[in-house]
Amino acid sequence: MLGAWVDGRVASSIAIDDRGLHYGDGLFETIAASGGRPRFLAAHLARLARGCAVLSIPMPDEAVLRTEVAQAAALAPHVIVKLMVTRGSALARGYAIRGGETARRIILAHAWEGGPDLLPAPARVARATQRVAHQPLLQGIKHLNRLEQVLAQTEARRRGLDEVLLCTDDDRIVGGSMTNLFLVAGNRIVTPPALSCVVTGVMRGELLRAAAGLGLAVVEREIGTGDIASAEGAWITNARVGAWPVGELAGREVAVHAWTAPLQERIRQAGREVRDA
Amino acid sequence: MLGAWVDGRVASSIAIDDRGLHYGDGLFETIAASGGRPRFLAAHLARLARGCAVLSIPMPDEAVLRTEVAQAAALAPHVIVKLMVTRGSALARGYAIRGGETARRIILAHAWEGGPDLLPAPARVARATQRVAHQPLLQGIKHLNRLEQVLAQTEARRRGLDEVLLCTDDDRIVGGSMTNLFLVAGNRIVTPPALSCVVTGVMRGELLRAAAGLGLAVVEREIGTGDIASAEGAWITNARVGAWPVGELAGREVAVHAWTAPLQERIRQAGREVRDA
Repeated sequence: MLGAWVDGRVASSIAIDDRGLHYGDGLFETIAASGGRPRFLAAHLARLARGCAVLSIPMPDEAVLRTEVAQAAALAPHVIVKLMVTRGSALARGYAIRGGETARRIILAHAWEGGPDLLPAPARVARATQRVAHQPLLQGIKHLNRLEQVLAQTEARRRGLDEVLLCTDDDRIVGGSMTNLFLVAGNRIVTPPALSCVVTGVMRGELLRAAAGLGLAVVEREIGTGDIASAEGAWITNARVGAWPVGELAGREVAVHAWTAPLQERIRQAGREVRDA
Repeated sequence: MLGAWVDGRVASSIAIDDRGLHYGDGLFETIAASGGRPRFLAAHLARLARGCAVLSIPMPDEAVLRTEVAQAAALAPHVIVKLMVTRGSALARGYAIRGGETARRIILAHAWEGGPDLLPAPARVARATQRVAHQPLLQGIKHLNRLEQVLAQTEARRRGLDEVLLCTDDDRIVGGSMTNLFLVAGNRIVTPPALSCVVTGVMRGELLRAAAGLGLAVVEREIGTGDIASAEGAWITNARVGAWPVGELAGREVAVHAWTAPLQERIRQAGREVRDA
């Protein structure tokens, strides 16, 4: 770890009564930074604000967050900044929000090995054995209740996979355990609708934008096992891996699609744009 | 707060890289202690061990846990001891369990206002507007992913209720946000089966044991809205409130059932027994 801060001060610990620890009562963002600049910061802060609204946590001052994230981003050429906002210390025992809690900002900076220009080998991806639970109240936001992802990513590592795809009880594949999913089918890009995503990824939004910029057709619709079996190409996306091409999908070899390089290039450019500064 | 310890040492904070904070990657027990004795400790530790097995967290040494809980229990005549076990500090970034993490023991002691002899007014209970998600992998264990309970208990307080009942997508009422549920129907006690409970309560087990001791018939079966509407009596249970009679159930007045006092008395006695020392 390069550094850590709590409410703007260098720290190695947090209060033992923090509701983030006790209940996962908080949110986080994983922000990739290069050359001292956090990429897609505006989109990360927008999602954080949505999560705060859902959980009734007061959104911290955005200018303060930007300053603190920038401080963390400056610690190395390439940095993964993890920003957490919890409801803060409990005002009383028990689950209920009392109102009047003071949200806590927690920032950790890790070296980003390779940075954005390291292109890993195409990803090995398959369906997870576990199902993902359906909780519309919490869907899309990046909250701190992540045991399903912990178990799924652990399964991925055990099976020698880079990612596992999560499936609902009604057989919709809603994305990966740490990524969103895009397929190529019939000359179009297909991805689960935002409302179906466990987390609505910032990089998901960037890929949609990049595809639009390239004039590629995108369809947001539910994805099933059949779609996985017939896909002509696939990417998994998150803030760190960008648009990672899938090379093996549910045991089947998949060619890296010709759209990969242009999409990646657009996303790289977008990450340097002023709108995200 | 009366006191707090991390891994046996007095502490007011935990490591900022604890996976309990980052992912809710851990478990907890809420243990009620009276006269320096934690009640039903064996049952609490058994559930903790089950949770550790499910999450592949090494169960801390039971003798150490007993010593540390007893230390917390001794701080006041009546104490609520919260025992958390997290996977400990992350060995690397990301969700996946790496193996080799060192579990962390976190204990907080709060004064238990009133203790076990304070019998509050019958509880006001109604159905929560939110549904509870179905995740069989995590069911029954008392893990740290508790946002559903946070939102449900907050709804209860907003509506002036003591508890709200959680309903699945397929219309089963599986219990309260912080309690298990028992109804009286046709001279029998009815409660959702253990496999349907969000958390399989220690006090749930004690009520079943007390009912058996009194020769009362108990049926474990799924509960629906109709059962709520027709129940002749009801209790909600947890380690702190014991068998709390329900006085208002989904807007309808319910009489405190004649079995309440004998059940409470049996549970009180059981809490003093040596098997739980």
